[in-house]
Amino acid sequence: MTGQVSDPGEFELIERYFLRGGRRAAQPDVVLGIGDDAAILSLPADSELLVSVDTVVSGRHFPENTEPRSIGHRALAANLSDMAAMGATPAWATLALTLPRADPAWLAAFSAGLLDLAAANGVALVGGDTTRGALTVSVQILGHAPRGTSLRRGGARAGDILAVTGTLGDAGAGLALRTGRLSAPRAAADELIRRFDYPQARVAFGIAARGIASAAMDLSDGLTGDLPKLAAASGVAAHVEVQRLPLSAALRAAADPVQARAWALAAGEDYEILAAVAPSRFAALEAQAARLNLMLTAIGELKAGSGVTWSLNGLEMMQPPRGYDHFA
Amino acid sequence: MTGQVSDPGEFELIERYFLRGGRRAAQPDVVLGIGDDAAILSLPADSELLVSVDTVVSGRHFPENTEPRSIGHRALAANLSDMAAMGATPAWATLALTLPRADPAWLAAFSAGLLDLAAANGVALVGGDTTRGALTVSVQILGHAPRGTSLRRGGARAGDILAVTGTLGDAGAGLALRTGRLSAPRAAADELIRRFDYPQARVAFGIAARGIASAAMDLSDGLTGDLPKLAAASGVAAHVEVQRLPLSAALRAAADPVQARAWALAAGEDYEILAAVAPSRFAALEAQAARLNLMLTAIGELKAGSGVTWSLNGLEMMQPPRGYDHFA
Repeated sequence: MTGQVSDPGEFELIERYFLRGGRRAAQPDVVLGIGDDAAILSLPADSELLVSVDTVVSGRHFPENTEPRSIGHRALAANLSDMAAMGATPAWATLALTLPRADPAWLAAFSAGLLDLAAANGVALVGGDTTRGALTVSVQILGHAPRGTSLRRGGARAGDILAVTGTLGDAGAGLALRTGRLSAPRAAADELIRRFDYPQARVAFGIAARGIASAAMDLSDGLTGDLPKLAAASGVAAHVEVQRLPLSAALRAAADPVQARAWALAAGEDYEILAAVAPSRFAALEAQAARLNLMLTAIGELKAGSGVTWSLNGLEMMQPPRGYDHFA
Repeated sequence: MTGQVSDPGEFELIERYFLRGGRRAAQPDVVLGIGDDAAILSLPADSELLVSVDTVVSGRHFPENTEPRSIGHRALAANLSDMAAMGATPAWATLALTLPRADPAWLAAFSAGLLDLAAANGVALVGGDTTRGALTVSVQILGHAPRGTSLRRGGARAGDILAVTGTLGDAGAGLALRTGRLSAPRAAADELIRRFDYPQARVAFGIAARGIASAAMDLSDGLTGDLPKLAAASGVAAHVEVQRLPLSAALRAAADPVQARAWALAAGEDYEILAAVAPSRFAALEAQAARLNLMLTAIGELKAGSGVTWSLNGLEMMQPPRGYDHFA
């Protein structure tokens, strides 16, 4: 969509399915949208630009039989979650789409999934590139935050409370249901599959946590994979009381406690926010979450030292299962 | 590199080969580089943000046997060229890399090609995502320009001179040499293959053309594919005198005149700049090109109306060959 549109066939393909994202970009912050060599964008005064990129590959990040609407949704949701983790306001996205053939039904559903989520978050699709090849979807997101206010992984201090939004493990159970490794009562199954197929990034919470949380990151790779990164970046140790991990009613209905806890610890794709907050500010962060009708649960604390320890009802746990591994 | 690093194996892989692009980002405009959920970047005051994305796929945008250093270089060069076409100063890039396996030799060469070109253009690699799959390289570039100064495709007016930088058709011949469809004397062949494998985006020219050129775009899909887009965006007709197309000595040594002209017209990947400029400003644009030791050649003009016509030594040409088609 920017400089790579090379023939009428491809041009029409892109026009038809994705230009909604550009045209709806009659937002004042889009000076020039899709159709030139680059988009021209205008940041608010005295803000910083935030940028992140996420790729999803068929058969690796979602089962081959995933509905295309979910693929489009998930590709953007992962990026929105990165903005949420930084406390940034997402504003624009570009799409690099590689697909084996131009199937109109697939493109209609995929683009609807992506563009509906973009519209719901005030994000304009401002550029892209479509190429033929194995299905690969890379979305790059651009956002902004007032200068100096972004939340980083490295800001946590010893004594901070460790908290998570929402519930953990639902997406892991949803994936198990989608791939036939779990069966569950219909209502619970629907809810868990929806959590996997249509994750909701905690964008409003991230923005609300600016100036309150000391550090944040999103749980894309599972708590056991992600928490050590926050602790290391902040130069502190972390301890988690595993019995405090928030489990949804659907997850508790669908899986036994040991399995539910394993997903809550190590399955990725929940896209909840892991935040560190000084004890004196925890009530303020809770109030922000409550305003957004979002659960916030203290699950542990940060301490001087390094490394992460886990306990269950007061007993130290063996090293819990590893998080999702993209490349091994 | 931003939020997607999920296990020690992948982390080390990325650290080893790409962090040079982040760490060297001790540039003041990189507030926070690789390693968090998103990078934090600082734009100059009173500037606009420019963004573009380009994907290259093995076997489609380059032959399967292309050296990995060239793949890394080309992936970024295509994006730099989009910035050049807009008159923007490239500043940052992110990389979405999908590859079938983590081959250290391949990664070392690929990352060197990308990062050396980035360094030469003052671009910091500030984020990325590595996934396993068929080789696909998407680079998104971010740049900036003083508010209101970017060059667009739609700014040309009837009466403007149409001009191109450098020489055309070299990359087309280079690709033919690389794939065994052409043989040529060694020196010419080396030069043409270098033009295909290591294209140079005209970044400095694009910046210099701000305030002089009325419109610009880059020639990534060939003149016959790209010029109609500039004419349509500007609402004017274009006429090209094909005998004026600038051909390099290497191309003239390697191919007969008819073949050379066909590549100059329709082969993509030259990454030269096509600019429209008012006759009164042509000398100023020429002077900027000369300062940069770059050839600038008037090849035709823009007129009232629509569509593109081509003549060769005064005789109207049949529709010349189509440009490169990514998706048919």
